[in-house]
Amino acid sequence: MKSVAVALHGGAGTLRRGFLPKAEEEKYILTLSEARDTAFYIVESGGSALDAVIECVKILEDSPLFNAGKGSVFTANGTHEMDASIMEGKSRNAGAVSMVTGIRNPVQLARDVMEKSGHVILAGEGAMEFARSQGYEFLPPSYFYNELRYNQWQKARESDVVQLDHSINPEGKFGTVGAVALDLNGNLAAATSTGGMTNKKFGRIGDSPIIGAGTYANNNTCAVSCTGSGEYFIRGVVAYDVSAAMEFGGLSLAEASELVINKRLIKIEGDGGLVAVDANGNVSLPFNTEGMYRAYRTSSESKVAIYEDWI
Amino acid sequence: MKSVAVALHGGAGTLRRGFLPKAEEEKYILTLSEARDTAFYIVESGGSALDAVIECVKILEDSPLFNAGKGSVFTANGTHEMDASIMEGKSRNAGAVSMVTGIRNPVQLARDVMEKSGHVILAGEGAMEFARSQGYEFLPPSYFYNELRYNQWQKARESDVVQLDHSINPEGKFGTVGAVALDLNGNLAAATSTGGMTNKKFGRIGDSPIIGAGTYANNNTCAVSCTGSGEYFIRGVVAYDVSAAMEFGGLSLAEASELVINKRLIKIEGDGGLVAVDANGNVSLPFNTEGMYRAYRTSSESKVAIYEDWI
Repeated sequence: MKSVAVALHGGAGTLRRGFLPKAEEEKYILTLSEARDTAFYIVESGGSALDAVIECVKILEDSPLFNAGKGSVFTANGTHEMDASIMEGKSRNAGAVSMVTGIRNPVQLARDVMEKSGHVILAGEGAMEFARSQGYEFLPPSYFYNELRYNQWQKARESDVVQLDHSINPEGKFGTVGAVALDLNGNLAAATSTGGMTNKKFGRIGDSPIIGAGTYANNNTCAVSCTGSGEYFIRGVVAYDVSAAMEFGGLSLAEASELVINKRLIKIEGDGGLVAVDANGNVSLPFNTEGMYRAYRTSSESKVAIYEDWI
Repeated sequence: MKSVAVALHGGAGTLRRGFLPKAEEEKYILTLSEARDTAFYIVESGGSALDAVIECVKILEDSPLFNAGKGSVFTANGTHEMDASIMEGKSRNAGAVSMVTGIRNPVQLARDVMEKSGHVILAGEGAMEFARSQGYEFLPPSYFYNELRYNQWQKARESDVVQLDHSINPEGKFGTVGAVALDLNGNLAAATSTGGMTNKKFGRIGDSPIIGAGTYANNNTCAVSCTGSGEYFIRGVVAYDVSAAMEFGGLSLAEASELVINKRLIKIEGDGGLVAVDANGNVSLPFNTEGMYRAYRTSSESKVAIYEDWI
């Protein structure tokens, strides 16, 4: 029997037990589970891994809980600048958008870049122009407004600090989102979406829209989506590094992803985690932070977690 | 005796002998040789690989011959949008800028991003704001004006074609630029700079500012700078792929870079080339196109070429 599998994350960081009120924890668990099961039903019923990761990430983007889509943090200018990327393992086609505003589902725009633009990465005003040409609706800033994010921004402004989405955050709200999937045809796909860093300046681009850093998929090896301190994931070429360790080094998915997150990333002082799936339906969700919003489902198991232990 | 080495490129493409008038060829050979020797003298006299690749790329950016800095092509809006990146092999620190205008030496700005911004990639207006904060002078469009580039743009507009910098180009003027170097301390560095594609739209970002795709350096393996059809270099994570094939696969620099350009890149239908140097001072300059503007110098050899054969 052919296996299918999905795994997803909603960000990694200093997530200690007791950090979130119980009722808040429940909301995260529910949304992560819903996104997981939506993706799983798609691949289980013969849908594509690409559709599965898109629908999964859309649910996370539409939730105010995560730092992507609706829940995106405020930039230094008080705007919401979002990045997203997607890659499919069969063709190794890829698409990404960076610094887009007013788009409900940046991950869908990344897919349209992949399928319709002839390019891989479109950014800023140009990416918005492409979205317009594809008939995208532009949402007003009020759609992205969130009191908690606003207060985070005000606090960051006062201290003139650029808050990484994974940095200490008393409200416990942060998190790039991402998903990986294997479908019945043996195709892998990965997608990542983020609202970046609170109070970010200077058009900073993190790893989320960078193929090889934040997102990678190759049917011969694995599909990977990352979350964490973006600059280090770029320098470590983290998503592709898992694939390279498997392909050139002969490591298993679990060995390769553990090596990359818990040895190689730590060596350059990066923190965060990733979710990955291989062509046999194995999943791996390592992180070197205290916690990571995450979930996975395979033919035999279905799990969700925030802190170290699985629920 | 410790060895030093430098290698550089000025773009790859359909460069056939007879394509350029002899006098034009001479200009390319002279500028490539000057950039090569400038970089070599820096590392030979104890300077850093980082300084060597910066000074080398600056010479190419300041020349109207190459598609970077002064010689950058026109976008669809009639502007000049430039990308550049840099990485040093010891710390694996990296910096990049994308979609900047009016900057004489984008490669220097990429270095300042690496050393002073706390980020890796800055793009668009934000990157310009960072440049302003660093005291950069903004040059008027006239600095970048070039009759040949203007005519290329008009021709592209008429046919509504986005010209890749490597595509067939009767004027024989194209070429992302880049350099790699090894210094006396065993440190490697790589840098890449480009003016993108003639008539490009939608804020397209190619591989040049992407660490792992267009540029990579790691003292344990190699330093790499790429040129070619950017979208394929991103999907193939080409610059880092050479390093991964060496580190995980145990290949030599020559084996790894040949594998990546002449097998793996071709498999996804990408065309272009790269220049690379390893920690022992070996250089490799493979390309799968008809030609590549290129040069290298080691303790024992000094070469320059445009077409298949070395001069």
